[in-house]
Amino acid sequence: MMKKFINNPDNITAELLEGMCMAYSQKVTLDGKLVCRANPKSEDKVAIVTLGGTGHEPALQGWVGDGMIDVCAAGDVWAAPGPPTLLSALEKVNRDAGILLVTLNHAGDVMSAKMAKQMASMKGIKVNEILTTEEIRPTEEEEGRGLGGCFFIYKICGAAAEQGKSLEEITALAEKINSQMATIAVLSELATHPSTGGVCGTLGDDEMEICAGQHGEGGGVVMPMATSKETAELLAGKIITKLGLTEGDEIVLCIGGSGKTTVMEQLIAYRDAAKFFESKGIKAVRGLAEEILTVQEAGGYQMMALKVDDELKTLWDAPCNTPYYTVG
Amino acid sequence: MMKKFINNPDNITAELLEGMCMAYSQKVTLDGKLVCRANPKSEDKVAIVTLGGTGHEPALQGWVGDGMIDVCAAGDVWAAPGPPTLLSALEKVNRDAGILLVTLNHAGDVMSAKMAKQMASMKGIKVNEILTTEEIRPTEEEEGRGLGGCFFIYKICGAAAEQGKSLEEITALAEKINSQMATIAVLSELATHPSTGGVCGTLGDDEMEICAGQHGEGGGVVMPMATSKETAELLAGKIITKLGLTEGDEIVLCIGGSGKTTVMEQLIAYRDAAKFFESKGIKAVRGLAEEILTVQEAGGYQMMALKVDDELKTLWDAPCNTPYYTVG
Repeated sequence: MMKKFINNPDNITAELLEGMCMAYSQKVTLDGKLVCRANPKSEDKVAIVTLGGTGHEPALQGWVGDGMIDVCAAGDVWAAPGPPTLLSALEKVNRDAGILLVTLNHAGDVMSAKMAKQMASMKGIKVNEILTTEEIRPTEEEEGRGLGGCFFIYKICGAAAEQGKSLEEITALAEKINSQMATIAVLSELATHPSTGGVCGTLGDDEMEICAGQHGEGGGVVMPMATSKETAELLAGKIITKLGLTEGDEIVLCIGGSGKTTVMEQLIAYRDAAKFFESKGIKAVRGLAEEILTVQEAGGYQMMALKVDDELKTLWDAPCNTPYYTVG
Repeated sequence: MMKKFINNPDNITAELLEGMCMAYSQKVTLDGKLVCRANPKSEDKVAIVTLGGTGHEPALQGWVGDGMIDVCAAGDVWAAPGPPTLLSALEKVNRDAGILLVTLNHAGDVMSAKMAKQMASMKGIKVNEILTTEEIRPTEEEEGRGLGGCFFIYKICGAAAEQGKSLEEITALAEKINSQMATIAVLSELATHPSTGGVCGTLGDDEMEICAGQHGEGGGVVMPMATSKETAELLAGKIITKLGLTEGDEIVLCIGGSGKTTVMEQLIAYRDAAKFFESKGIKAVRGLAEEILTVQEAGGYQMMALKVDDELKTLWDAPCNTPYYTVG
């Protein structure tokens, strides 16, 4: 039995977006299915636009605001918005300075982005796209999906846009981040779709799945449930390999809880991972342990790391003011 | 079966505190079981000290930092710290300007605070205490416990302390806040103690409990599981009665998820509550919908409201910089 505090299951997305723009009315405002900055950025600066399904709060709408995303186009729960919704987001911030469109690599989002870009191009709207593909898969041959690492792009490219960098510079920065970041997910309990009550995937009581993606789509590696330390070291080791991290490297390390997993566990996982990186001479110079991209009440977390240099660190530390992430 | 990412159950508190001070090392630092500001406040300003068990993250340690708490004394999971731990916190920030000690009304915390204050007094440490009692109970005769409303005190008294207000002024402010705030909790799923695996309370699959306190101690009112709107209106109505709110009043409204309940649901609850208050002429001028004081993977949320005037609004909006709450 699904026990959630909702009303009509068909109205979940509309109601949660309305709630976000009511609670954080000084930061965000709602225009249909677009969550927009309450205080729009000046038109001579590059705009950051993104798209994605709801049901992953605080992602993605929760990071709209000064210094991060300008407009986020919302789909339904776990579903991409249609091309017309995304096109309306691009039209809303159309400007000579151009738009960086951040698309997470999931089939529906990729298709909507492709069609909306074509339509925008016909209207003379200047859009560059970054496709985030930072997920670590079980084999190197498989293409990574876009998980919570998008947060690094929003934060850092958002800060660069505030500083007045050009679209070409910001696009290059986004590509650099995508090539220097990695996310790996571990799943310990399954999520239910809040509208249908359907459960994604299967998982035994004594099992967990790594490389599990977002929703429990499968394709990961199922193994016996492990301690925090064993799990964190396994995931961190795969990040080191993927990014080719070596002694002296610095990273931003984020542990993003998937829903049911507590902040307490996220903090312990952060500790265990940071100590493991440190044992390899890799320093977590900045960190977060909090819900970033959730999947309803799923258990587990995403471990995200970005290899940073002084430029990226400075932009990471720059001010931002959004409902779910603020730097003063 | 309890499925959590932990290591030795006896080390949970030490490991989570270490993780917090590693992830947010620019904001907080660890001294035994004391979480302290990384950048201590100047000694001519009043210090804010609090105490409480862990297992409620982000509460309470997560709000140590500029503009909120100076030192938080941690107990074990769901357990008050002993008087010596709290005394060491008071000694750490001993100053002529004085200390405001914020104690949540739970038997263990109250006793530790009482003994630590006596010992501090003998050492000439100047301490005023505020006991938070804002919980709405099933009957008016029952004394309220201290729930997530402590957040209002930390934020607003912390801002007043930064502005250089005196201990007498800040104590009066804390008393004003305690008399103008109310919290009511709804519980839909039970929490397990992360060290013992023990479950607090009982609750049927189709039931929820209001006035449920923090841990599922019982003493609330069990009723059939309801929609978001029905639940939010029931809770908001009780807040209106408790605070005697009338048309034209302004409140800060916070929906703090208990653990398993998603940000999605918290946002819908915020919407439903804010609209209900609005229908009575009461305006939620500021808001939050996020995890504030959790109880492991419990389902449900705490609805907190503070009646505000211009003074309280200004202090609410003042800057702060802590691991889990930042105002720029």
